[in-house]
Amino acid sequence: MPKVVAFLGSDIEPTAYAVAQSHAQAGQKTLILVPTPGIRFKHLCGTEFNPQPTTIAPNLEIVELQAIQILSGAWEELRKFVRDYVPADVLGSEVYAGELMVLPGMDLFLTLNAIRQYYQNSAYDVLVYAGIDPTTTLRFIGLPHALAWYYRRFGRILEDLDPVKIANAIGGPLATALLAANFDTQKISTALSQGKEWVEQGVNAVGDPQQLQVYLVTSPESMAIQQTQWLWGASQQVQVPISQVLVPTVNPAAIEAVTAAFSPLTVQGLRGNDRGLVDVASLPNLDTPLKAPPCQEMNVAQRQIKVFLPGLAKHQVKLTQFNGEITIEAADQRRHLPLPPELQNQPVTAGKFEAPYLIISF
Amino acid sequence: MPKVVAFLGSDIEPTAYAVAQSHAQAGQKTLILVPTPGIRFKHLCGTEFNPQPTTIAPNLEIVELQAIQILSGAWEELRKFVRDYVPADVLGSEVYAGELMVLPGMDLFLTLNAIRQYYQNSAYDVLVYAGIDPTTTLRFIGLPHALAWYYRRFGRILEDLDPVKIANAIGGPLATALLAANFDTQKISTALSQGKEWVEQGVNAVGDPQQLQVYLVTSPESMAIQQTQWLWGASQQVQVPISQVLVPTVNPAAIEAVTAAFSPLTVQGLRGNDRGLVDVASLPNLDTPLKAPPCQEMNVAQRQIKVFLPGLAKHQVKLTQFNGEITIEAADQRRHLPLPPELQNQPVTAGKFEAPYLIISF
Repeated sequence: MPKVVAFLGSDIEPTAYAVAQSHAQAGQKTLILVPTPGIRFKHLCGTEFNPQPTTIAPNLEIVELQAIQILSGAWEELRKFVRDYVPADVLGSEVYAGELMVLPGMDLFLTLNAIRQYYQNSAYDVLVYAGIDPTTTLRFIGLPHALAWYYRRFGRILEDLDPVKIANAIGGPLATALLAANFDTQKISTALSQGKEWVEQGVNAVGDPQQLQVYLVTSPESMAIQQTQWLWGASQQVQVPISQVLVPTVNPAAIEAVTAAFSPLTVQGLRGNDRGLVDVASLPNLDTPLKAPPCQEMNVAQRQIKVFLPGLAKHQVKLTQFNGEITIEAADQRRHLPLPPELQNQPVTAGKFEAPYLIISF
Repeated sequence: MPKVVAFLGSDIEPTAYAVAQSHAQAGQKTLILVPTPGIRFKHLCGTEFNPQPTTIAPNLEIVELQAIQILSGAWEELRKFVRDYVPADVLGSEVYAGELMVLPGMDLFLTLNAIRQYYQNSAYDVLVYAGIDPTTTLRFIGLPHALAWYYRRFGRILEDLDPVKIANAIGGPLATALLAANFDTQKISTALSQGKEWVEQGVNAVGDPQQLQVYLVTSPESMAIQQTQWLWGASQQVQVPISQVLVPTVNPAAIEAVTAAFSPLTVQGLRGNDRGLVDVASLPNLDTPLKAPPCQEMNVAQRQIKVFLPGLAKHQVKLTQFNGEITIEAADQRRHLPLPPELQNQPVTAGKFEAPYLIISF
């Protein structure tokens, strides 16, 4: 599986391009994924590119993620899938991939599906995702944990579901039919457990910097720093460890300001080169990730959980308890922490916010 | 219904804030909708705000759109809806709004739902949507036309659907049950036609600058201009008329460069004030929208359609024909043009791109 690299911050393109170049120059086959229209990237590489991967340097390819193109591909897959379940003549006249329109939200799903395909076909060593909307990047990164929660939560409901009860509730001949119908429960259960396995792989990948490396990128202006600090807090909510901040400047005062704002992370200043790009030689070693502060630490003996929430103030953090899990609401994300058996169903005795930690005691 | 104002471009916040101030100062009750975290806006207004509308000046309120907050509200609505159809004891244990997690794409849907609620409760005269990701803004604006197409396209399939045929295809006791079941077809058909009415209202609103006013915002740098030009083309694909470009500078050379790039639109330079904000007095008259070039012109007598596609090059435009409609693919959007009866099922004899027009002849 390729390593995935992503960025949170503003104005990430020059840095993302340099990181991709660095991986390629180290002999790793690298693909940059750029959401459409990618005008900034076309300037950076000085060339056009399109929805087919284009080689722009040795080991370095770039592709534009266009929702309507991906939709066409996905439609063909979906049709194959649907054909297994629904007889063809029921669907009536044919709907073509080339006429479908993209609805809000669909493009994110499609982009994610395209990334998944590049991830699974293993043609690359490194995928550099250069999405410029950090909220979208966060939702992508947060997906495995969110799905894992849906599995935990609704899995219980699915187990509780009793076909006989449903049939009785509906009543009439439909009930009789439901009970008599030959549901392919084996097929459904196989699909469910395969999905669960993918989700578990995803959760592992998010927590492992060798599989997913996320860099914070900020300029040294106060507002940019505040925004990137918020993104840092949000990244902890989706449980991705962060170890480094990349700053496209080598001005010592600027580096100092960023270092103070992002303590204890390592801050790396990046030099510009004569073409107005980020100098690849000024990047840190990308192959040995630095140690990142853990997103949370559970101490069963002390009956305490320390939740890392940098860049956020007390009034932005909310703590609740549902179904034997701890729920932390902050930075427009919910983090559910399943508890070890010793702490399950125990009342929270204190939840204290001492920046940058939320300390929960049982 | 309130008027909705939106912006396409980069660095839109100072301009959006000034436009909102201007409407409020003219006595119109105005709400600014800012996607979370809204740090830039908190700097601009010099105050905190949250998911409840906060008054920041006479007639001027601001609200932060947080996906997890909106999700909680939407979940309650959904539960009420589901309860009408599914017996409560079937669903098993309760799932609470406060524990749900947001999946990719869901936040767009939720944001849209929140905007719709503010739109329908009519407490405001003007809603200023200050989303900073132009791709998302475009998908929102494009939604009514996209849904209208789905209605046209899949409506036909729904009409084609024959319960008897489906039942026979499935076979067995389930078929008998389906045929015997007392489907509330009246309820379904009412819901479908109400949905269709909303979609038609939406399509009208998108085309009427008194209901939806979209401004292009650009800085005078060449890359920003190129990006905003692309967004101009994309806005024509979602069929929203654009008449003005707002540029936060009064430098004559800069205004000239922008004017040349966006001909025939009116370009308005905006002054900064001593607080570093956009001077409200430098805005154009916002209540009488200027005439915008039409998104397309159909000339039945000449058997010709002129499609306006500014900011795009020939290789970025694709023309196809499906089901008696013309489909134009450009700027990661599909535009479907239903044809007048005279041109339906007529072969296209020529499709010529002469920037900024695609000229289609029959």
